[in-house]
Amino acid sequence: MSTWRRAQQLAATHGIDALLVTPGADLRYLTGYVALPLERLTCLVLPAHGEPRLVVPALERHAAEASGTDVEIATWGETDDPFALVADLVGDATTIGLNDHMWASRVFAFGEAMPFADQVLAGSLVQQLRIRKDAHEIAALREAGEAIDRVHLRMAEWLRPGRTEREVGADIARAIIDEGHTTVDFVIVASGPNGASPHHELSDRVIEVGDAVVVDIGGTVPAGYCSDSTRNYLAGGTVDPQYAEAYAVLEAAQQAQREHARPGVTAESVDAVGRRLIADAGFGDLFIHRTGHGIGQETHEEPYLVEGNDLVLEEGMAFSIEPGIYVDGRFGARIEDIAVCTADGLEVLNNTPRGLVAL
Amino acid sequence: MSTWRRAQQLAATHGIDALLVTPGADLRYLTGYVALPLERLTCLVLPAHGEPRLVVPALERHAAEASGTDVEIATWGETDDPFALVADLVGDATTIGLNDHMWASRVFAFGEAMPFADQVLAGSLVQQLRIRKDAHEIAALREAGEAIDRVHLRMAEWLRPGRTEREVGADIARAIIDEGHTTVDFVIVASGPNGASPHHELSDRVIEVGDAVVVDIGGTVPAGYCSDSTRNYLAGGTVDPQYAEAYAVLEAAQQAQREHARPGVTAESVDAVGRRLIADAGFGDLFIHRTGHGIGQETHEEPYLVEGNDLVLEEGMAFSIEPGIYVDGRFGARIEDIAVCTADGLEVLNNTPRGLVAL
Repeated sequence: MSTWRRAQQLAATHGIDALLVTPGADLRYLTGYVALPLERLTCLVLPAHGEPRLVVPALERHAAEASGTDVEIATWGETDDPFALVADLVGDATTIGLNDHMWASRVFAFGEAMPFADQVLAGSLVQQLRIRKDAHEIAALREAGEAIDRVHLRMAEWLRPGRTEREVGADIARAIIDEGHTTVDFVIVASGPNGASPHHELSDRVIEVGDAVVVDIGGTVPAGYCSDSTRNYLAGGTVDPQYAEAYAVLEAAQQAQREHARPGVTAESVDAVGRRLIADAGFGDLFIHRTGHGIGQETHEEPYLVEGNDLVLEEGMAFSIEPGIYVDGRFGARIEDIAVCTADGLEVLNNTPRGLVAL
Repeated sequence: MSTWRRAQQLAATHGIDALLVTPGADLRYLTGYVALPLERLTCLVLPAHGEPRLVVPALERHAAEASGTDVEIATWGETDDPFALVADLVGDATTIGLNDHMWASRVFAFGEAMPFADQVLAGSLVQQLRIRKDAHEIAALREAGEAIDRVHLRMAEWLRPGRTEREVGADIARAIIDEGHTTVDFVIVASGPNGASPHHELSDRVIEVGDAVVVDIGGTVPAGYCSDSTRNYLAGGTVDPQYAEAYAVLEAAQQAQREHARPGVTAESVDAVGRRLIADAGFGDLFIHRTGHGIGQETHEEPYLVEGNDLVLEEGMAFSIEPGIYVDGRFGARIEDIAVCTADGLEVLNNTPRGLVAL
């Protein structure tokens, strides 16, 4: 059954008369159409009962058709009012579900065009579908994992003392494309003390001998699925003994999490398993973020492996396992793999060496 | 004066007690911070009177500080409620302005956290500032224009019969980075009949001898400003006589638009000047989109050169001039330059040959 038919059924179950979905991962998941998120309105109008329509600007009709979507296309011209068109298609629906990442300007414009309808957030409904990956999606995530692994395996070509993080990052970005991604989603090269900032990106800091460097990189492969993997490199010299001690704990924690995660355990339990080991070693205050995030057509999506999330993992759920230890002003380390729940275990999609890689 | 102080003054004038701005071009413009648009809340809280705060996840404090922003940073931990934190900072404000591209999920969450406040859309207020570029911004757009011009000048390296649009597009994407952009924003290679689809991207169609090919490409330079330029190439052979006739009209129309656009004329008049020439030549129905869009930190922003927009152009406004002619099933052509209004005229930022380039 097409994904939009499954979303229709869920909408009906939840008392939503029609879903409106603007460009982004939800639209791609439901229709196959990768629309540009531009100012001209593109919107899937999906009634709980009846036929959906994909509303697109006239000049994007061919692009929408080229996606191969099985949803009938309705177009509007440069001086038409597309919100009135959507209101016509929605008809007398009284509860309208909106995708989570819809722009505020669309939310307000739909509100004005349909003043008697209630707007509700419907992203969680589509997430219920997206959170369980099928065999094709898992194959695409596997392909993405292999592509980013190939980039990590080439790190010695670029990462060395005397170069700036930005220079190394530019080379990595090219390799992300060369190894099979269509877009570069992010490149973090966090050297020495910059490693203590988990979302540091690139700076003009010159990498020094003896620096530990956190490299966290990802892109999107042609099938539309994302990669995301973090490894740690030593830029020559010898490692700070305190770093080595922390790193050994981190490796053990990440391994324990990989061995624990499987269908039937909760998302928060994966976090807890690693956090306990890190805390027992005296580094608890230095693991300042959750363990992981789901991944699919977006780099970050459900499920989140975080304290308080008692969601029970199921076959097909894919997520990162990425504990980290951060010492302000000195160094940081993080080990990250993407993994997907199989029927009774876990398939890990990143498989380059997880130890500190001396270059 | 910092941009956020000017936004504060505008907010006060418009009866908005506080602005909430989530990641995107508005946030970057107001704070200098290029935040990742991820699920953890990042939000500028800008009261009409008093000191602003930049709310960021604790693990992104260093990244936010590295932006050099002069706004004080407030952080929240992995298990805190960031919406309650924003509500505290907003205090007793009753009218809350939201940025246009804020996610619907944020709009709803702020609504729940501040149930007694009215939400209004405030993007146009920030656009009033962003629409007039200062000398630094124009310099960045000029740099972007020169970078994309260098890519167009290298087209003969990649575009030739026997290759697919996708192969050519991958080479162009690499060159966009090599010539000085940090990201590839879009690559359109529309060959032969695909040229009739203005927002066609890339396909597996093999380019044939005699194809006219529309190449519309852009990226973002390190200063955060975008490029966008379209040229037309002949992949060997000779050109269809009807295409040549249409192309001559298109070139004349685009030139007339460049000669017309300047401070004091309306946005819609630039569109009309070119549309009239194209219509007079009998191709009116084939120019199926507006003439252009503003450009800055986003590829598409205000002002839009479209029928019905009587905005009077002013010094510092930057926009594309890109008329096109499209014959369904056969071919298309579009000529696009970015230009910026000077005190009394127009500076055109793309300067490669505008004629059909035979390769």
